[in-house]
Amino acid sequence: MSQETELKTLISHSKEYGFIFPSSEIYDGLSAVYDYGQLGVELKNNIRNYWWYSMTRLHKNIVGIDAAIFMHPTTWKASGHVDAFMDPLVDNKDSKKRYRADVLIEEHIEKYNQRLQKEIDKASKRFGDSFDKELFVKTNPRALEILEKRDALHRRFVAALEKNDLDELRNILQDENIVCPISGTKNWTEVRYFNLMFDTKLGSVTDEASVIYLRPETAQGIFVNFLNVYKTGRMKVPFGIAQVGKAFRNEIVARQFIFRMREFEQMEMQFFVKPGTEMEWYRFWKEERMKWHLSLGIPDKYYRFHDHDKLAHYANAACDIQFNFPFGFKELEGIHSRTDFDLKNHETYSGRKMQYFDPETSESYIPYVIETSIGLDRTVLAMLSYALREETLNDGSTRTLLKLPYILAPAKVAVLPLVKKDGLPQKAEEVFEQLKWDFQCIYDEKDSIGRRYRRQDAIGTPYCITIDHQTLNDNTVTLRDRDTLEQIRIHISELNNFLNTQYHYKNYLG
Amino acid sequence: MSQETELKTLISHSKEYGFIFPSSEIYDGLSAVYDYGQLGVELKNNIRNYWWYSMTRLHKNIVGIDAAIFMHPTTWKASGHVDAFMDPLVDNKDSKKRYRADVLIEEHIEKYNQRLQKEIDKASKRFGDSFDKELFVKTNPRALEILEKRDALHRRFVAALEKNDLDELRNILQDENIVCPISGTKNWTEVRYFNLMFDTKLGSVTDEASVIYLRPETAQGIFVNFLNVYKTGRMKVPFGIAQVGKAFRNEIVARQFIFRMREFEQMEMQFFVKPGTEMEWYRFWKEERMKWHLSLGIPDKYYRFHDHDKLAHYANAACDIQFNFPFGFKELEGIHSRTDFDLKNHETYSGRKMQYFDPETSESYIPYVIETSIGLDRTVLAMLSYALREETLNDGSTRTLLKLPYILAPAKVAVLPLVKKDGLPQKAEEVFEQLKWDFQCIYDEKDSIGRRYRRQDAIGTPYCITIDHQTLNDNTVTLRDRDTLEQIRIHISELNNFLNTQYHYKNYLG
Repeated sequence: MSQETELKTLISHSKEYGFIFPSSEIYDGLSAVYDYGQLGVELKNNIRNYWWYSMTRLHKNIVGIDAAIFMHPTTWKASGHVDAFMDPLVDNKDSKKRYRADVLIEEHIEKYNQRLQKEIDKASKRFGDSFDKELFVKTNPRALEILEKRDALHRRFVAALEKNDLDELRNILQDENIVCPISGTKNWTEVRYFNLMFDTKLGSVTDEASVIYLRPETAQGIFVNFLNVYKTGRMKVPFGIAQVGKAFRNEIVARQFIFRMREFEQMEMQFFVKPGTEMEWYRFWKEERMKWHLSLGIPDKYYRFHDHDKLAHYANAACDIQFNFPFGFKELEGIHSRTDFDLKNHETYSGRKMQYFDPETSESYIPYVIETSIGLDRTVLAMLSYALREETLNDGSTRTLLKLPYILAPAKVAVLPLVKKDGLPQKAEEVFEQLKWDFQCIYDEKDSIGRRYRRQDAIGTPYCITIDHQTLNDNTVTLRDRDTLEQIRIHISELNNFLNTQYHYKNYLG
Repeated sequence: MSQETELKTLISHSKEYGFIFPSSEIYDGLSAVYDYGQLGVELKNNIRNYWWYSMTRLHKNIVGIDAAIFMHPTTWKASGHVDAFMDPLVDNKDSKKRYRADVLIEEHIEKYNQRLQKEIDKASKRFGDSFDKELFVKTNPRALEILEKRDALHRRFVAALEKNDLDELRNILQDENIVCPISGTKNWTEVRYFNLMFDTKLGSVTDEASVIYLRPETAQGIFVNFLNVYKTGRMKVPFGIAQVGKAFRNEIVARQFIFRMREFEQMEMQFFVKPGTEMEWYRFWKEERMKWHLSLGIPDKYYRFHDHDKLAHYANAACDIQFNFPFGFKELEGIHSRTDFDLKNHETYSGRKMQYFDPETSESYIPYVIETSIGLDRTVLAMLSYALREETLNDGSTRTLLKLPYILAPAKVAVLPLVKKDGLPQKAEEVFEQLKWDFQCIYDEKDSIGRRYRRQDAIGTPYCITIDHQTLNDNTVTLRDRDTLEQIRIHISELNNFLNTQYHYKNYLG
């Protein structure tokens, strides 16, 4: 399956089974916004709970908070977002469409790559087994020309970005004959910076001071509450504050399903440490967070670290944990050593001492911060894209399987009467009533048992319990395992214990 | 304690112990927005989970969703919010302050009430035991005058509201000499309608069509997803869709702590029924929801139904469940029979058939809807305001107690070594490690055991486990119950079982 087909299949499976719907679909949707359906919300909640549990409950020195989306606007002056959280935008005067100038240029560079690849493919066909790609690119005049043009453009582009030279970005558009995909013209406006924060007005609309922003990240909600949490929670450095919540970015180019949305949910933790110890804690959290991902049981080849070459102005070390999505390895989580950048700036802007008093040494200092920041929606996407597959069974038939980690599955168990008569539904109801207090259960009596198994496979339910005629005699049921397809016979009274053991967090995080 | 003192005490307790902080407090806060601290977030999460569990897991025919805050703007045309979700506002030209004209008038009516009460109090003192209030008000000329003026104003005010007569509201301000509390003048602008929805701009800013709103209620996220959920979830009427999420209202007058916030969280369920059966289901859900509240164990005198006299245009029956807050009985939850108002309007605006096909009768119809809508933040406030109290113990000493329902307490158990030596902290750590997988635990070894008990009482921790010297010999600990103060000796190996039984939802909802 090509990567594009794979993503399309995923999107349509997600909709068909009630995981993810386009937002306001009856009104033809809202670009880059999605709604979670009846199974998607359970999957998302399970991931959120797993993260929250592992970060706050299993770490004695990490507590949670839940700050509002609305924050005092000075917060975003202090964080740098008002002045620097910008994209370079350009409008085409004919189509009236707006684009990110940097993305237009990146896509143009990609076109050079495609042309080069075409030359390589043609030559490869011609030369067969004896084809040497490296040698070809270095010696073929046409390939060499494309390569040199691409590299020159790339250098010019990077230089323009580094100097924030918007005129030069526009010159590149003109010089490279980059046209609007709609109008086909290069009748571009000036390139201007455009802030990615959504703004709105709070309370009285008469004065300018009432403009506020939807938070573009949850982290600042932790920084502005640093003093309150440290003091009322009697925290001692090193300690962490964790938070899950919505953030909003007015992305001009938003795509790849729920990978980059305008409204999204972050799970962030800021860990406050003594200055000078931050690299040690940075390494600790890199390892700890990778362990967390692997605890879910997805093969480690799906994950990799990606160290940042270029550091943001506030960081002295940073890396991503990337996941192998259908469109390649992309950021799933970021781990950043943010120094004292944020707390120091809040101290400057608020006039409040953002310091920690160390009772052992009697020193006061602004702590350094290690941040772990993971996208909740991206984790949903990672899980679904890993999990969805067509599987050929031993008997040659195929099934659609959603191989989610058991602990994250929307439904933990399905209760199925073999047939819809002979008192089996009544018996199945009893089993359902017994299990529902402890597990998210599905009850299904429609269709043949085979079709019902397939349906549970497609939504990732780890266990199916089938009530048959023997159940009426000896109170045993069959318990079918989603992945191994093994069926065992088990007494109804043992079901809760069996499932409790399977689903205990300790099996994953212990 | 007066009601005002009571609320002040609650606000300061909430801050001191890390339940609720003013948002962006280092920047002097943001009006009517609050952040949940390290204990508040756990309390809020516990309430959210309790509701979600009882609504979705315990009802086979109710599923959840999680729709985005951003929705297609036509949603709010269809729902009526663009045209009718308005407050009548007026500015004072001297102070430049903005007010709700209706609230100014309501407060003015309240002043008449206060003046009347003053007369009553004076007379009551004069007459002593023989005082007859009814008779006094009817016969005393001064009291009678106040009463008549008040009633005339009230009639005039209600008539103006019913006709949406904004000029008449302004006339009332002038005629009654209602002045701005800041400037002291009655130099008022015209009264104008102001929409309560926050707006912002999505994507490209050049065209007007990109204005979107922050949802003022979560309900519409359910209605626009009705078809998707019903079809992909194979739901059969009657069925429900539940959702928890943020909503936003640009209240001009926002007050009473977290009772009325500009950003707040709702827990809503829309129950789709066959037209003609709605009154039966309305009664069902009234009873069911009251049972839910009472399941938490707070005395039933704190709750009451309040039937709406005047129904909203979309409802054919509606009531509130009110809670006795420090400022009196106020709405905690609303139960509304919304007819087919919303689905029908979405059908009109979207051109999509919002109909249910009944496979048994082969009819298609737009279902009627019963809505249950409860404020999550208000429930937090209800729990805290019920729970916080000063208690005098048998020995005459007092303690501050947060008598939260055990199932909602932020921490389920505190593990306390009696002293910080003799290996007791190490033993306590072992107990903590054993319990943390199943329960939100606090470990505390600072201060005397008495002070630590008081601290746990003040944050509502139901059980304290104390590790003492005997523990080292026989592996038993003392287990202290927050409310009864009883202490029992229990073996460490029995702790998980004991607590699991106490904290099982079945004890509350079974």
